[in-house]
Amino acid sequence: MSLTNLRIVLVRPLYSGNIGAVARAMRNLGISDLALVSPARLHREQADTMAVHARDVLDSMQVHASLRAAVADCGLVVGTTCRLGLYREGALTPRVLAPHIVAMAAANRVALVFGPEDSGLANDDLRVCHQLVTIPTDPAYPSLNVAQAVLLCCYEVFLAAQEPTDNGAPRPLAVAERQELMYEKLKSGLLKIGFLRGDNSEHIMFALRRILGRAGLEDRDVCILLGLARQIEWYANDGWRLHEQNPGAGT
Amino acid sequence: MSLTNLRIVLVRPLYSGNIGAVARAMRNLGISDLALVSPARLHREQADTMAVHARDVLDSMQVHASLRAAVADCGLVVGTTCRLGLYREGALTPRVLAPHIVAMAAANRVALVFGPEDSGLANDDLRVCHQLVTIPTDPAYPSLNVAQAVLLCCYEVFLAAQEPTDNGAPRPLAVAERQELMYEKLKSGLLKIGFLRGDNSEHIMFALRRILGRAGLEDRDVCILLGLARQIEWYANDGWRLHEQNPGAGT
Repeated sequence: MSLTNLRIVLVRPLYSGNIGAVARAMRNLGISDLALVSPARLHREQADTMAVHARDVLDSMQVHASLRAAVADCGLVVGTTCRLGLYREGALTPRVLAPHIVAMAAANRVALVFGPEDSGLANDDLRVCHQLVTIPTDPAYPSLNVAQAVLLCCYEVFLAAQEPTDNGAPRPLAVAERQELMYEKLKSGLLKIGFLRGDNSEHIMFALRRILGRAGLEDRDVCILLGLARQIEWYANDGWRLHEQNPGAGT
Repeated sequence: MSLTNLRIVLVRPLYSGNIGAVARAMRNLGISDLALVSPARLHREQADTMAVHARDVLDSMQVHASLRAAVADCGLVVGTTCRLGLYREGALTPRVLAPHIVAMAAANRVALVFGPEDSGLANDDLRVCHQLVTIPTDPAYPSLNVAQAVLLCCYEVFLAAQEPTDNGAPRPLAVAERQELMYEKLKSGLLKIGFLRGDNSEHIMFALRRILGRAGLEDRDVCILLGLARQIEWYANDGWRLHEQNPGAGT
């Protein structure tokens, strides 16, 4: 079971040494696809020092302006958090999630997303994630170095990939870019019909993302939901008029 | 289940930054007893930078001149290696060994020993270890950063400590200092009777250490083995004469 479909994404990393240490940890566990989102200025020499024999991971890493762009081609986007609380419910441990990641990586690109060293992933980042993972630690000092967090997650996936699995046929998911388009349409429709309001829209959309993220959306699911979203929007724009003109319709 | 009995031992560490990163990883997983053996010059500032909120681990760490001294009060000494080969047979994975470490740590100090960044533990270090552990990695680049190796081992022990265990009553083992005394006596006796020779003594003693290390020696076991070793030595020095003088004795 190869992990070529697994991508490590570092969001706004601050320290080049950490980027190098991440590259080494990835290479130790047979993973090589690294992406950065809006990094602080990259000191390649510092990164190289920590990467040791994993400089090829740094050579081939991609840099993106947004997390959405970094995961656009991924079917499953997993965000890491060491905090719990709002928008962080339902986080699983790496050990529990690893077999699922391995199963999904058989037919999809899967992103594991890590936040900045000082603050972790922001709510705007978590929104793009389909599933959250949190590493069990001592509550007295839960904040792991980012390279350490990458290592532990990769280690669990690496071990899970060596287990014989019985996950049935590989299941290709809709890529994140298609899913995002659907969520935008859905949000726009739900705002129009007043299900979402200014004060609750973020929260409700987050809950919907979590539910559908857990479900694992395939292309046909996204088509159905996109159709639903468009229908809602159409009804809010024009459909209700038809209804008004013809009150018996649909009853 | 507390991990206060777990000690992390770094043998001849080269880089102060790594010592700080080790302290942080330990603190993240609720472990605080750190010992160094003959470290390269310690730059406390570099260590502090990487330790972040785990500087208290650095404040209380002990520095020893030898690995034997660092583990003298430990009942179980576990050495880490990323290589296999001579003197490295029988290494278990951290996941397999962790429940045993937790069970032993209920009644004994347990040392987890890590080697220098460039070379790992030497054969002389491995000799002092009762059990070996090796972290599963990609064979293409198996060498983990030392703080990463510490983190993974502590993580497995931390998770195992949270599992309900059914290990029966805590079993206090003989401390390493007592065991070493016994091994010295045994070696001396076995050399005298020609079971050990110059060319095989290291190898055979290593095999004996592995076997008895796996057994987990309690004080009474060490007493018995020490008695055996002394009897062998006595026989080689004087006993055979009695035998010679009185050829019928013992038949």
